[in-house]
Amino acid sequence: MANQDTTFKNVISHAKEYGYIFSSSEIYDGLNAVYDYGQNGVELKKNIREYWWKSMVQIHQNIVGLDAAILMHPTTWKASGHVDAFNDPLIDNKDSKKRYRADVLVEDYAEKIHQKAEKEIAKAKKRFGDAFNEEEFVTTNPRVLRYRQEQKEILERLAKSLTDGDLADVKLLIEELGIACPASGSKNWTDVRQFNLMFGTKLGADAETATDLYLRPETAQGIFVNFLNVQKSGRMKIPFGIAQTGKAFRNEIVARQFIFRMREFEQMEMQFFVRPGEELKWYEHWKETRLNWHLSLGLGKENYRFHDHEKLAHYANAAADIEFDFPFGFKELEGIHSRTDFDLKAHEEHSGKKLQFFDPELGENYVPYVVETSIGLDRMFLAVLSKSLVEEDLGNGNSRTVLKLPSILAPTKVAVFPLVKKDGLPELAEQIVEDLKWDFNVLYDEKDAVGKRYRRQDAAGTPFCITVDHDSLEDQTVTIRHRDSMEQSRVNISDLKSIIGKALDFKTWLG
Amino acid sequence: MANQDTTFKNVISHAKEYGYIFSSSEIYDGLNAVYDYGQNGVELKKNIREYWWKSMVQIHQNIVGLDAAILMHPTTWKASGHVDAFNDPLIDNKDSKKRYRADVLVEDYAEKIHQKAEKEIAKAKKRFGDAFNEEEFVTTNPRVLRYRQEQKEILERLAKSLTDGDLADVKLLIEELGIACPASGSKNWTDVRQFNLMFGTKLGADAETATDLYLRPETAQGIFVNFLNVQKSGRMKIPFGIAQTGKAFRNEIVARQFIFRMREFEQMEMQFFVRPGEELKWYEHWKETRLNWHLSLGLGKENYRFHDHEKLAHYANAAADIEFDFPFGFKELEGIHSRTDFDLKAHEEHSGKKLQFFDPELGENYVPYVVETSIGLDRMFLAVLSKSLVEEDLGNGNSRTVLKLPSILAPTKVAVFPLVKKDGLPELAEQIVEDLKWDFNVLYDEKDAVGKRYRRQDAAGTPFCITVDHDSLEDQTVTIRHRDSMEQSRVNISDLKSIIGKALDFKTWLG
Repeated sequence: MANQDTTFKNVISHAKEYGYIFSSSEIYDGLNAVYDYGQNGVELKKNIREYWWKSMVQIHQNIVGLDAAILMHPTTWKASGHVDAFNDPLIDNKDSKKRYRADVLVEDYAEKIHQKAEKEIAKAKKRFGDAFNEEEFVTTNPRVLRYRQEQKEILERLAKSLTDGDLADVKLLIEELGIACPASGSKNWTDVRQFNLMFGTKLGADAETATDLYLRPETAQGIFVNFLNVQKSGRMKIPFGIAQTGKAFRNEIVARQFIFRMREFEQMEMQFFVRPGEELKWYEHWKETRLNWHLSLGLGKENYRFHDHEKLAHYANAAADIEFDFPFGFKELEGIHSRTDFDLKAHEEHSGKKLQFFDPELGENYVPYVVETSIGLDRMFLAVLSKSLVEEDLGNGNSRTVLKLPSILAPTKVAVFPLVKKDGLPELAEQIVEDLKWDFNVLYDEKDAVGKRYRRQDAAGTPFCITVDHDSLEDQTVTIRHRDSMEQSRVNISDLKSIIGKALDFKTWLG
Repeated sequence: MANQDTTFKNVISHAKEYGYIFSSSEIYDGLNAVYDYGQNGVELKKNIREYWWKSMVQIHQNIVGLDAAILMHPTTWKASGHVDAFNDPLIDNKDSKKRYRADVLVEDYAEKIHQKAEKEIAKAKKRFGDAFNEEEFVTTNPRVLRYRQEQKEILERLAKSLTDGDLADVKLLIEELGIACPASGSKNWTDVRQFNLMFGTKLGADAETATDLYLRPETAQGIFVNFLNVQKSGRMKIPFGIAQTGKAFRNEIVARQFIFRMREFEQMEMQFFVRPGEELKWYEHWKETRLNWHLSLGLGKENYRFHDHEKLAHYANAAADIEFDFPFGFKELEGIHSRTDFDLKAHEEHSGKKLQFFDPELGENYVPYVVETSIGLDRMFLAVLSKSLVEEDLGNGNSRTVLKLPSILAPTKVAVFPLVKKDGLPELAEQIVEDLKWDFNVLYDEKDAVGKRYRRQDAAGTPFCITVDHDSLEDQTVTIRHRDSMEQSRVNISDLKSIIGKALDFKTWLG
């Protein structure tokens, strides 16, 4: 039995067909980079959120939750740096009137040069066959050397201009490289200017007194501004954490890759407040803890890797991503950041309030340092969904589509079938549904042959199917069939609750 | 032992002190009519949401969930009528530059007249004592009769003007009544004009192509636009329901009463799709089912009542509120509406897509009718919190503050105390925490005398406290203490999980 990697396209169409994800407002032809979660999607999303919450909040005595509003006082975003620095550099073509991210135009250009070098290498590989020494070739071939040098210089200059905020030089670079508008071929460009990625709105009706607000671009600041409220009312002692899940919004110019980068998305973040000087110890602790959380779901160790940031954000003194092997390659799934005391200090300055902790052991007040774990719930959803979907070869030309979701995350836990629609089998099956429904998401299905019903639940990701047959009426046993192994066994109806319950035990899963 | 009603003010300060609710962005002096949920608030909110979800989705084979985005295609709000009709009539005072809701100005004026009549009645009551016949007095006293007539005429004229959209007459009414600006006393008013309550924002960076979007003012439309996606991919047959919880936003001019009317709030809605002609049967079914859901929490039958709407919204053919006795009186907690086929038909018209169901029993296509149940999660939170908070007289001049939350909703289920901080008691207590934390929210506390720890948990709403003492080391038993009765009993440590589990059994609660 071999699994085949399914393509990204299959994931997207499967997600729609089985009620996981629909385009937002699809009857109005959708809204770009916004999606709705269907009847199965909402349950998978809830289960991921709950698995995270239990792992981060419920089992930790020193981590508590929070649910801050999406609308916050606008000074919050001044303090956090988002008003001044949460920008994309944009450029317009004067002829086509099309707008682009200036940095993406340059990066795409550099990528083309990179592809030229790759082409040379591929050509040589073909020509020389087994005798080809790639390392020697790329360090001696003048064309490859030139392409690589050129690519390197372009990207370095772009990085320097962006870091320096020298947008005039970004435009100069585009002109020097002769980059044309992909739509029109025109090289008639406007200046490059910064575009803030926060969605704006107005609170209040009065044009004179209405307040300019933003939809929060991240949930973290809701935790920072509430730091003291939670610490005091919860009698928390450092080290302690505050965790939160919730929506955030970014007006991305280039939103893409399905639910990987959306304009409206959900974050699951935990800010861990520590003694200054101890942050790197905790940073290592949370890197390890979070990776183990991912591994606990059993999607395969080989699908995760750390990417340590070389270039750090202005607020961080250490940062790493947990990358996941998405259908389009390894990309960031979660970030672990040592944010220092940047945020709390910034809010102290802008609010005039002290945001400090009195450490009874040290006998002194300080602004705590912060280690953050931040994961996109939608990305996690895509990671789980895409890695679970397999087309399985069953031999003899047969195959099945199966969504091998971790059973603790599956939307429906168990489907109950009467073998036939008569002889009292539906009644007994429904009785089992009635009994199990208080503890699990249960589905009743009596349509089509049992084999077809199994396939339907395989594709929907249901880990257990229970079939009621004529023997069941006699001996109160049923057949339980396991999605992944397709193994079937005979069990007592009275044991069903504990069999399924055991398979979904949180402690066993988290390990 | 007598309970005292606590005032609304006490509820608000208790909510802050015990980590239930904080003002949003409080360090920046808050954001009007927006609140954050603290470490206990987030858990209570999660538990209410989950109790609703299980009751509405999990145990019903014919109801499924959905999680639509907050941002939707703007035509959605054209079809739903919100762009044209979701307005408040506003008026500005030209001298003070203050803005008011014109209808509220008139209503406040009418209320003052009402108060004058009440004063007359109170005066007479005092004068005549036991001999006072109120019914006779109010039907014969000329002053009272005049006040009541005047109040009635004002409110009727206001209602008519608003229904007719005759804003000029609303202004005329304000002028005729001589209503002055409460801030300045000036009667120099602008015209009355409609102000749309939806928050607007812009999608995309290009001024020319940016799309005007709204933050959804209700979650229901996300269900209607996904009706066909869910019905087809979920193979749903009428009657069936789609349930959703999520944030909605309204730019209220007069937002007040704590979390009762917020600008950002969360709804829990279920739209039930039925055969045309059967909607009133289902409307009655859901009225009863939803009231029973409320009663299952045990806050007291006397705190709920139905209010049947006499004046129906344009889309409804029957509507009722479940009202709750909030600290400020009976107010709407939940609405049950028979919405007819108004919404689906409107989306058919605006999208050009058929939103119909083929009914195999009737052998025909139709646009289903819809019965909606819609409850504000924040209002439900306020209902539960305010009714649970009691100041309990313990006799002999003693009292305690106790938050008698339904235990299935309580943020922390059990607190574990070592009697003293030595002799191995903390270790055993922590072992119990370790054992219980996988199933319940557990809290460990070793600070202060046990009596004080009990009081702390009473005020926080924790239903069970477990105390580990020296006997526990010998015989592996502990004292379990019940929040409401304050009764204590001795139980085996190994029985704790099942004792607490039983008290939180969902099926038993919902009944």
